[in-house]
Amino acid sequence: MYRLITQDGQAKRGEFHTVHGVIQTPVFMNVGTAAAIKGAVSTMDLQKIGTQVELSNTYHLHVRPGDKVVKQLGGLHKFMVWDKPILTDSGGFQVFSLAGLRKIKEEGVYFQSHIDGRRIFMGPEESMQIQSNLASTIAMAFDECPPHPATREYMQNSVDRTTRWLERCIKEMKRLNELPDTINKKQMLFGINQGGTFADIRIEHAKRISEMDLDGYALGGLAVGESHEEMYDIIEKTVPYLPLEKPTYLMGVGTPANILEAVERGVDFFDCVYPSRNGRHGHAYTNHGKMNLLNARYELDDRPMEEGCQCPVCQTYSRAYIRHLLKAKEMLGLRMLVTHNLYFYNKMMEEIRDAIEHHRFKEYKKAKLEGMAQGE
Amino acid sequence: MYRLITQDGQAKRGEFHTVHGVIQTPVFMNVGTAAAIKGAVSTMDLQKIGTQVELSNTYHLHVRPGDKVVKQLGGLHKFMVWDKPILTDSGGFQVFSLAGLRKIKEEGVYFQSHIDGRRIFMGPEESMQIQSNLASTIAMAFDECPPHPATREYMQNSVDRTTRWLERCIKEMKRLNELPDTINKKQMLFGINQGGTFADIRIEHAKRISEMDLDGYALGGLAVGESHEEMYDIIEKTVPYLPLEKPTYLMGVGTPANILEAVERGVDFFDCVYPSRNGRHGHAYTNHGKMNLLNARYELDDRPMEEGCQCPVCQTYSRAYIRHLLKAKEMLGLRMLVTHNLYFYNKMMEEIRDAIEHHRFKEYKKAKLEGMAQGE
Repeated sequence: MYRLITQDGQAKRGEFHTVHGVIQTPVFMNVGTAAAIKGAVSTMDLQKIGTQVELSNTYHLHVRPGDKVVKQLGGLHKFMVWDKPILTDSGGFQVFSLAGLRKIKEEGVYFQSHIDGRRIFMGPEESMQIQSNLASTIAMAFDECPPHPATREYMQNSVDRTTRWLERCIKEMKRLNELPDTINKKQMLFGINQGGTFADIRIEHAKRISEMDLDGYALGGLAVGESHEEMYDIIEKTVPYLPLEKPTYLMGVGTPANILEAVERGVDFFDCVYPSRNGRHGHAYTNHGKMNLLNARYELDDRPMEEGCQCPVCQTYSRAYIRHLLKAKEMLGLRMLVTHNLYFYNKMMEEIRDAIEHHRFKEYKKAKLEGMAQGE
Repeated sequence: MYRLITQDGQAKRGEFHTVHGVIQTPVFMNVGTAAAIKGAVSTMDLQKIGTQVELSNTYHLHVRPGDKVVKQLGGLHKFMVWDKPILTDSGGFQVFSLAGLRKIKEEGVYFQSHIDGRRIFMGPEESMQIQSNLASTIAMAFDECPPHPATREYMQNSVDRTTRWLERCIKEMKRLNELPDTINKKQMLFGINQGGTFADIRIEHAKRISEMDLDGYALGGLAVGESHEEMYDIIEKTVPYLPLEKPTYLMGVGTPANILEAVERGVDFFDCVYPSRNGRHGHAYTNHGKMNLLNARYELDDRPMEEGCQCPVCQTYSRAYIRHLLKAKEMLGLRMLVTHNLYFYNKMMEEIRDAIEHHRFKEYKKAKLEGMAQGE
């Protein structure tokens, strides 16, 4: 399924074959939490900005509209009208970050819906069933995302349970993929490495899950409060214990700099809400750093957000117009910023792939970081 | 400038030639109050849904971003990136409906900005200057929009002042159109007929302003609280006193039924916030009546909002998906509804033009009203 095309140092350039098409890696997945990109961006728009993979959230779709509704409507691809790959997370992270009162047991997690307070149970089997109903291309294993900081003892117990949950996920997905009314019978499963900032726990866990021959492996529980240096250190120490011939996914990360550092350490897949969230706050990513479009200096600026940018927004509208839309609280301004920012991330990944292919990733990374550090 | 192609009863089918292209009438102008259609719809989207004329508000753009800013940026067409006709209202209606404490004097109106409470003065000359700065295709004369109900005495005094203001508007626009740095030196001016529901005042005023040889004539101060029957009656009695060889514009109206009734009485131009406002409240216009997309019956409905509709939304997305977006409070749902509703209005005007051309407007109107009355 994954073909390693070339390496430049530890940086990997690969191709991941799925039933919904080939993903060129490294890749940044565009986050559409509730089956929609926030900021009024449609799947038709995603087709124009180089999006390869859309990511939706199992927990959100389970509570609304309900995964059974999505299944009856033919699965997430048909529901959203998106024919390329979709990755669904397992719901684990949201259960631990969003949901109300929760109890972790060996069988799974009891918690309250953040929408209506209703009591819900989710364990490995439920997460796999929901993701099978959603019929995503890639499902994520159900794990515990441990708090940061956590004691060594808590972490070890949590990781051991996550391993036992992974075994149950594998078994359940195999069963689901063989059922006659399963929409995507070739759904793939990525396991998730945990262990916080305890490198030895991470490494042992990576070795353990690597034996399970999954379709891909993720690093979870990072970017949850530790420093960037701690995160880079953990990635550097753990990735060598994950299979080279499988994709590696760093969950929920991050800034352009974070992505460049992680690619250098062998990561293939990324996702993050930054481009859409920052867009909704009036910030645009550019090769000269982040711009705050609300700034008065753009009042009469008729240039595009980024000169030379090929995104549909920069090809048409000016800084002055976008600033006005933001000031006037017109939704259109947010849509424009989110569109540009997602394009910026997708385009950066394309540049990264090109740089690795040409074995000049280090030079590319240096130049990109220096450019972004200039400030606007 | 206006060419009457044919008539079907009183209904007019015309062509209005402007520096920004030809407008086929009857026409519905799409309202982009603050130089943006509410609901994250861009001018690029308008190109795809049959929009002929965009309408922006002088008062809103004067307070933000400021008409001088728009002028420095090359005018509203360049600012919004819209090359077809733009009509700007005079600011009068907003001064009387939105602004704080106001004082009406012979010279104009003193009022407070609804944004920052700042004291502003606007009279006929100021309104013309602002609209000249915005460089719209068609400017509206500065009038008083009298309260409803108003006494006969108040109304007569108000209408007389509106006539004197119109004379000042004509003079000022002539001056502005001759200035070397005016962006649109061919800016056109529409006068506004007032008189509330006093038919005789309306008629006298219509006769008076018809002598002034303006580019078009509007009926203002309707749909402000009087019944539909009163409004239709006033239109029917007044339009015959406005020039047949000029376009007639019914300001701020209305529902599809209102438009059909007014077209039958000789109106050419319309504008209304209903399609975008109702869209933002989850309502879609269809040929079978209005749909509330939040209704539970659409939860599993994979049909488009309107079967056979050629709008970009109905061509792609289902009722079930749009309902989910609305329930999840995703902006994308609002964008889809506004897009569809504007398309519905624009398409209805196309049908109206076709029906008048083929002298079957009455049959068309009857069938359309019956269809919409079915309910969904």
